[in-house]
Amino acid sequence: MHSLEISTRGQRLYEITSAVSEWVRQQRMQTGLLTLFCRHTSASLLIQENADPTVRSDIEAYFDRIAPEGGPYRHDSEGSDDMPAHLKTALTQVQLSIPVIEGGLALGTWQGIYLFEHRVRPHRREIVLHLIGE
Amino acid sequence: MHSLEISTRGQRLYEITSAVSEWVRQQRMQTGLLTLFCRHTSASLLIQENADPTVRSDIEAYFDRIAPEGGPYRHDSEGSDDMPAHLKTALTQVQLSIPVIEGGLALGTWQGIYLFEHRVRPHRREIVLHLIGE
Amino acid sequence: MHSLEISTRGQRLYEITSAVSEWVRQQRMQTGLLTLFCRHTSASLLIQENADPTVRSDIEAYFDRIAPEGGPYRHDSEGSDDMPAHLKTALTQVQLSIPVIEGGLALGTWQGIYLFEHRVRPHRREIVLHLIGE
Repeated sequence: MHSLEISTRGQRLYEITSAVSEWVRQQRMQTGLLTLFCRHTSASLLIQENADPTVRSDIEAYFDRIAPEGGPYRHDSEGSDDMPAHLKTALTQVQLSIPVIEGGLALGTWQGIYLFEHRVRPHRREIVLHLIGE
Repeated sequence: MHSLEISTRGQRLYEITSAVSEWVRQQRMQTGLLTLFCRHTSASLLIQENADPTVRSDIEAYFDRIAPEGGPYRHDSEGSDDMPAHLKTALTQVQLSIPVIEGGLALGTWQGIYLFEHRVRPHRREIVLHLIGE
Repeated sequence: MHSLEISTRGQRLYEITSAVSEWVRQQRMQTGLLTLFCRHTSASLLIQENADPTVRSDIEAYFDRIAPEGGPYRHDSEGSDDMPAHLKTALTQVQLSIPVIEGGLALGTWQGIYLFEHRVRPHRREIVLHLIGE
């Protein structure tokens, strides 16, 4: 069990693949299952392409369009970016599990792991890493 | 392994955090992974803010807007709320895994676990709880 | 650990329930957790109704509407179906975990497991199956 802390500065995808992979390698577990759990309701997790950066900016822009600020929300006491942040979190996920094979993550060639920050102001986010196996 | 049964009365988020936490505590497992699995295709699982109730009503209203009744659906034999229910389930998830630390769920301060009922009529929903660890 | 290979021919839901169930049965594990992990960023996993086929075609049509080709995307070098494919993957998931009870998957009566192919051209997709338990 490990806790990964990430300081975010605004709404975007933050790649955490290296930090997660490195921790898994250090555990020296050959075969198992890694679970990432994001302990927040306005930031989420996503596995997406880590090659062309325009994929990321298109994803960010897309979620802004389908969960826009200024919608007919009742909950607005925490700022206009707060309710969209909850919706974007609901549309993605706060938990991801990835098999571990031969001591490393079973990610595909183009897959990167991202923390998806949905709030404008800087935040400190915590992701719990849990590993089980042999 | 345990089966949690929830009687729903209409489309909304039903908090199940206490029932799930209590069962986990009773298992007296120090470190592990809890998996919740919803055995339905028109109800789903969501982790969201459990403080301000307007967050929940905004989430419910949002999913009604993006997966509305009366859309251009071919499948309508089970009522006008059925196809939107399948879509809302597809947009959220039927499975959630949460690490267990020191005998309890590693949820963040504001995170609650919800069953998201998407059908209008009363239903009996079953969520399988599976725990693995030491 | 096992790798399931699926040859797809265009954008639709491909049912993989039988192949997954069969592999799980062969492992002769009584109680455990199966994790499916899709090693791609333009194809995803979904658990949905496997009875009426119009549910599937409605789901496919719905995702085409909310993540359409021809949107205001910057990433278009890999074809007009590529960015919608990433968005549909982000809106669904690349990982699913299902409890195993009495040697079989704890799926509900109407639940089937699907690979959701989002690209037009034929692809060879790989899904890693990981099983842990007793």
